[in-house]
Formats: sequence, structure tokens, C-alpha cells
Amino acid sequence: MFSQNTYVERRKQLGKSLGKGLILLLGNSDSSMNFKDNLYHFRQDSTFLYYVGIDQPNLACVIDVEKGTTTLFGNKASMDAIIWTGAITSLDSLAEKSGITSVLPLSSLESIVKANASQAVHYLPPYRPEQKIQLAALLGISIEETPVKASVGLIKAVVQQRSIKSAEELLQIEEAVNTSGQMHLEAIRLGQPGITETYIAGIIQGIAVSGGGDLSFPSIVTQNGQYLHNHASMNALEDGKLLLVDAGAENHMHYAGDITRTSPVGKKFSALQREMYQIVLDAQLAAIAALKPGITYKEVHTIAATHLVSGLIAQGVMKGDAAEAVANDAHTLFFQCGLGHMMGLDVHDMENLGEQYVGYTDEMKKGTAFGWKSLRLGKALEPGFVITVEPGLYFIPELMDAWKSEGKLEQFINYDAAFKLKDFGGIRIEDDFLITESGSRLLGKPIPKKIEEIEDLKQ
Amino acid sequence: MFSQNTYVERRKQLGKSLGKGLILLLGNSDSSMNFKDNLYHFRQDSTFLYYVGIDQPNLACVIDVEKGTTTLFGNKASMDAIIWTGAITSLDSLAEKSGITSVLPLSSLESIVKANASQAVHYLPPYRPEQKIQLAALLGISIEETPVKASVGLIKAVVQQRSIKSAEELLQIEEAVNTSGQMHLEAIRLGQPGITETYIAGIIQGIAVSGGGDLSFPSIVTQNGQYLHNHASMNALEDGKLLLVDAGAENHMHYAGDITRTSPVGKKFSALQREMYQIVLDAQLAAIAALKPGITYKEVHTIAATHLVSGLIAQGVMKGDAAEAVANDAHTLFFQCGLGHMMGLDVHDMENLGEQYVGYTDEMKKGTAFGWKSLRLGKALEPGFVITVEPGLYFIPELMDAWKSEGKLEQFINYDAAFKLKDFGGIRIEDDFLITESGSRLLGKPIPKKIEEIEDLKQ
Repeated sequence: MFSQNTYVERRKQLGKSLGKGLILLLGNSDSSMNFKDNLYHFRQDSTFLYYVGIDQPNLACVIDVEKGTTTLFGNKASMDAIIWTGAITSLDSLAEKSGITSVLPLSSLESIVKANASQAVHYLPPYRPEQKIQLAALLGISIEETPVKASVGLIKAVVQQRSIKSAEELLQIEEAVNTSGQMHLEAIRLGQPGITETYIAGIIQGIAVSGGGDLSFPSIVTQNGQYLHNHASMNALEDGKLLLVDAGAENHMHYAGDITRTSPVGKKFSALQREMYQIVLDAQLAAIAALKPGITYKEVHTIAATHLVSGLIAQGVMKGDAAEAVANDAHTLFFQCGLGHMMGLDVHDMENLGEQYVGYTDEMKKGTAFGWKSLRLGKALEPGFVITVEPGLYFIPELMDAWKSEGKLEQFINYDAAFKLKDFGGIRIEDDFLITESGSRLLGKPIPKKIEEIEDLKQ
Repeated sequence: MFSQNTYVERRKQLGKSLGKGLILLLGNSDSSMNFKDNLYHFRQDSTFLYYVGIDQPNLACVIDVEKGTTTLFGNKASMDAIIWTGAITSLDSLAEKSGITSVLPLSSLESIVKANASQAVHYLPPYRPEQKIQLAALLGISIEETPVKASVGLIKAVVQQRSIKSAEELLQIEEAVNTSGQMHLEAIRLGQPGITETYIAGIIQGIAVSGGGDLSFPSIVTQNGQYLHNHASMNALEDGKLLLVDAGAENHMHYAGDITRTSPVGKKFSALQREMYQIVLDAQLAAIAALKPGITYKEVHTIAATHLVSGLIAQGVMKGDAAEAVANDAHTLFFQCGLGHMMGLDVHDMENLGEQYVGYTDEMKKGTAFGWKSLRLGKALEPGFVITVEPGLYFIPELMDAWKSEGKLEQFINYDAAFKLKDFGGIRIEDDFLITESGSRLLGKPIPKKIEEIEDLKQ
């Protein structure tokens, strides 16, 4: 946990933003795998971690804004629990570390909420089914209503605070990024013909857990990198293919890292792979150079897309004017996703609060067109934002077939040349950045990404 | 998946046991970690795997017993899904592998169930909140009613079938046990002073995932083995302590292994640790020698407990007659849990169906006293059962204090001697066995457990 003062100040600021009402923050429960007591690793809700900091299941917190009080709801450990899992820090003492003096049993949450029925109860959109059941019972509404009645005021206030990372948060993020870097160095070294994707996925998951945290999201470890979220399979890696690994750790305080590297299976990139790789790397470097407060991430995305298209024009895969091609969304045949997203306590930070609120503004709505609908962050950058920059090129046979059959955007795409790349795969390069007053700063120790650096790791 | 015939025959047998009605088997959904799309690894429901075999989320299966038909409910992959995760085997083709010819969209499940409202709908007790929400909506009952209205007839029929493991299932279990063995060899080697419990937990989790499956349950990796389910911490291992690791893999078909080894941190057991370790090992060997069809697992548990008490009497920690001490439950101060449990597609096989139904009979009720209430399996063993045998000795300071303050069972316990063991820790040794026609067979390759074998691994 951070210092007591951190949590007290965060809650005070939140209360000030809301002005009045009750703020109900639900912690997460344990999730069952294949029977009730066989549990997935516990993952606390990130907003609960941000304002309360206590990393245990079955808690709730109520902030009474006008009274300026905070109450923690949870149950004390039983003697049985001590026999099974050992003495644990008492809830009272954890509450104190968070600057909370009022601790009540979880069973009294309902009566407290109902006793304050005259006040608005602000809560965040639930993303787990047990939260929906709990909210429906607490508030006397139907399960279907629970996401709809979440508080937009609370969402906006939380987004405003969590978007700006403090110095102590940045240290945590850098720890996570450095563990993520270790995972990638090992994956690049292991990526030899005959090794399975699953084997590499297991080893790098072990590194994340050994680091004291866990994976920040399910690893993508694939020689079919054209499928953007293809997961590891038991297939053996084949010489000549590209291995795309998009993976990261979260540290023990649950701050995320999120890194992608693409490396050759075997010792070296082929000539074509080198050229394509350099296009993606140049696009990433151009995007990074553009990062600064005030520029919108939509603009940065467009800069990257234009670099990608210029590279593909030079390769004869696309044609015409690069900027015009991007304006017509022709790049989305090969770059179907967004350039990046916010990162913090969630790898897609605050995604459960709604991408419109996190990545856009009242004036700038999130796009709905193919490609743009996958850009999670579009608004102007601010100092303190932490973001990923992850351009890529993806040659998806099914998508190329679909576009070709419609004759789509033929003025920008050389389908004959593109079709020759149907078995090329995909390339993505991703790093994590802080937006500073004057530009940006790479988070964590640099992880090799130049062609010669990657090849050196494989010797 | 096993052969088509396996699933067809299993469903036929199930229908025969039930006689009539609709059998509704719900597959599991994806579970969210910290936002909706950030998912825990998918774990299919084990009973769904047993009767249907399809390892994908958001499926349901309805068996109409009288008509003899099986219908699979699920949605086909969209073009969007193919872009993001790559071409996947179609639901129709998976259904065919399971011998199911009728596939309908998930949205039609409700109308099919309602069209058959005159028939009893048999379903199993839900253990995930989304299953409760789904069942409540399907059957027009409240969420609280969903566990209560589960079908005892279906539970009993499923338990009867899943309890007897086939030859093809045993091959899968042995694969899982062998991966579990690799995890333990590595953990024993890594258990050196200064290494953290978390580090070891990460490495062995990596081995489980690299094996193509996952952990079969959250690993227990602790130098505080007296707490039976204490999980890994960031504390460094200390020379002179015992490292208890209770961990296992499930293989790619989700069959479990479950192994415990206790080893010295550093190179060798101390003299006292050797003596205590040998007590536990002898108790395990005596229990294993007693395994055969017809003996109740309560009797085997008692044999193990009596051996443990005899050993503690020889050490001066207990006194009096060993059998009499066990009859008075005096052993439960040092052996608080059960000797073992069924194992199969779940590490505690079928635990969600209810321990009374899985481990006991209509005539033999599960105990409620301390110690006995933790014995998951009490009934007579049958050929084809797969079980764990895991005796242990646990010196829990809080429990010893509580008993001493009540002067509990002073005729059997030398509290002065016992209190000297307050910092001893805990020892558990666990292997997995098949009950055969004539006795039992160890599953998987033997994993070192003799004192000299363990010490050899540390040199």
C-alpha cells in the first residue's frame, strides 16, 4: 500500500468532485474455476485499489460526501481461517493504513445504504456477475438495470483522477514494465524452431508470477501474429516464421506493463521480414517523436498509419498518396487496430468505466468505422498520462479475401502484391510512455527492438 | 477430445440412469479479472467436459431423455472474431466430434426449455454467479433458489459415472501427475535460503502452463506448512525451515494431478525433521498398503491417524494408547484435515456436486466434528476410483494455544513437549492412486519422497 495520506487525499478529491451523495465502491470477490473453492488468483478491483488500497476479497467502501466520512465493510477472519491460511493482518489494521477508522461487517452494508435512501448512491459500472447480483439486491433494482444506472458523474471524476499518474505510481509501473522486459528477453531467446508457443507462454507467465505479481493480461504468443489476439497453441514454431509476443506483468501493487516484440523464429530475419519490420519500427519512432501534451492521440495514430502506408507503398503493396490513403481508411486492411491505450492499474486503464469517458471527450466521440472503433484513446494528451504506442502490420488472409471480393479501395491497394503476403504473418512493436510537460519519457529500461539487437539475442 | 463414441455412450448411460426429463448441462463462461475483456484463463465446467467434451465458453447442452436427443446451444464465430483470434474450428464440427447433430443458437435455449415446461429440468448445483443468473432466467425462479432446486437424481447419476475412471481417462491423469512431478522436482531443487516462496510458485506455474494445461489449483508453496492452505509470500526461505509444496498441473484435457512434497530449505533435514518426516511417510505407506476395494476411506484415514499418533507418542508429544487417542479425536490437534479425496477432471473431483454425494452414502453421513468434517471421502473404495493419500503433521500455534487453554484431551497430549514444536512448521506427503481389483496402483512416475532421495536432489 502507499501511505495513508495518499488514500485519504484521493478520497477527499473524489468527494470534492462529486459534491454530494454516497459513493459506493465495491471490491471484487474470489472467482471460482471448476468448483466453488477452487479459485482463480484473486484480482482486486482497480478503482477500489486506487481509493482504498486493500487487496482482499469481499470488501466494500462507502464515502458519505457531505459528512466527509468513509466506512469500510468486511468480515473479520475466523479461527478456522487462521488454521487454514495462517494469521493475517486484521481488517482494522488494514483500514487504518488506508486512513479509515470505521469498519463494519459486510452484512450491514445494505442497512447503511437503505438508511441513506434519500441520497443518490453513486456506483461504477459492474463487470462481474456477482457485482450485478449484489448491486441489484442493495439498490432494489433488476440485474439488467445495474450497468445502466451507474453514475456518470462518478465515472468522470474517477477518470480525471486515475488518468494522471503520480510519481509513486510511476515507480510501480516501471517495476511492472521491467518484469515485462524480462519476459520478452526470455521469449525472444526461446523462440527457436520446434519449441511450442505454449511452452514459451508458460515460461514467461512463470517470470511474471515469480516477480511477485501476475500477468497483466493473457499473453499473446504466436507465429500467427496476423491475428491480433491469437493465443498460444501447442503448435511447434517453424523456422522462417515471425514470433509475435504481446505480454506484460502486473507488479505486486497491480500496476501493469504491456510490451510487444516480434522476432524471427531461428536466428535471423529474412530480407522481406527486415523491410517490413523496419516499416513498423519507423512508424513507432515517428509516433513516439510526436508525443507531447496537447496533441490528440488520433493525430498520433494518423502519423503512425501514414508511415505504415508510405512503407507499404515503397514495397508495392499499396499505391497512391499515403495521406490520402489513410484519409480513406485504406490502412485498416493492414493496421486494423488502434495505436495504443492508457495504462495504469489496468492494462487498458479504466476500460470498465467506458472507452468514451476514458479515451474521448464530450466533444470528441469515439469512432464506429472499422479500424477507428478499435482506437481506445483519441483525445488530447496531458502530462501524467501513461500510454502504449503499438503500431503493427497484419496480413489477415480472410480480411484480404473479403476486401478483394468487394473490390474495396482498389485505388490504394495492390491486391496481387498483398496476396503474396498471405502467409507473412504479423508484426507489432509496443512500448509504454509517460507524457511529460515537454514530450514523453520511455517507462522502464529499454528493451531491445532494433533489428540487430533482436538478432544479437538469438545468437 | 476422446472419440465420438465415448461421449455418445456417456450421455446414453446418463439418460438411462435418469429415466425421464430434460437434462440441462451448462458450460462455463469467460470470467473477467479487472475489466470485462481482461479474462482469467477459460476453464470449462468438468461435467460439461465429461459429457460433451467441447472446451469453449458460452455453450449449453440439453439431453431429452425420453426422445434420446442431444442439442448443443452456442453461437458461431463472427468475422470480427476471426480477425482478432484467427480461424477456429466451427461449432458444427466440434459438435460432430461429440456425436451431436443438432446445434442451435444460445438464444433459443430459453424457448426450448419453456416448450418442454411439462418435463422436469434436471440441472447441477451452480457454482458461478453467471450460472445462477442464467438458471434463474431460464427457469423463472429466484437466484437464491437456483442451488436449492438442483436435481439430486442428476447429481447421483453423474457421481456414479464420473467416479469410475476409464483407461483413457487414466492416461490423461497420469500425464497430469507426471507434469506435477516435474513441478515438484524443480521446487525441491529451488528451495534454497534466500529464494522467495513466490519465485518458486511462479516457476512451477510456468511448468504447468508450458505442459499445455495449467495449474489444477492455486499452488501452496510455504515454509509455514503448519497452515494447511497458506499460499506463497514474498518472504525469503530461511535455512533450517521445511518447505511444503502442495501443487499440481491439469493437462490439456483438464485432468488433474495433485502432489505434495516437503523438503528442507538448504541441503539436509535436521535430526528432528527427519524423525517427524519419517512418521508422516510411514503413515502414508501404511495407508497406501491398506487401499483395496471394500475398505472405507474412513478406515484408511483412521489407520493413517493411528500411525501418526504412535509416532508422536514415541516422540513424547502425545501419550496413552494410540487407538484410544484417535477414537477421542486427539490426533486432530496435529492432523486437522482429511487423508485425501477423489481426483479426476476436478482436483477435488465433483466437489461442486456436494461432498455428501461424492464421498459418502445415504447410510454414511459426512462427519461434522473438527477434523472429520474435513475428510472429503469416507465411503468404501471401488475399483476405478482415483484418490489422493496425503497424511500430515501440522503444529499450529494458535490451535495449540486454544486447546491448552481449555485443558483439552490432556490425557493424550503432552502440551509442554508440543509447545516446543510451535515453530516446527508442517509436513505433508501426497501421491495419487488408482483403486484396482486387488489393491491400488500409484499413478504417474514415482516422485522422490524418501529422506535420502529428497536430500540427493538438493546436492
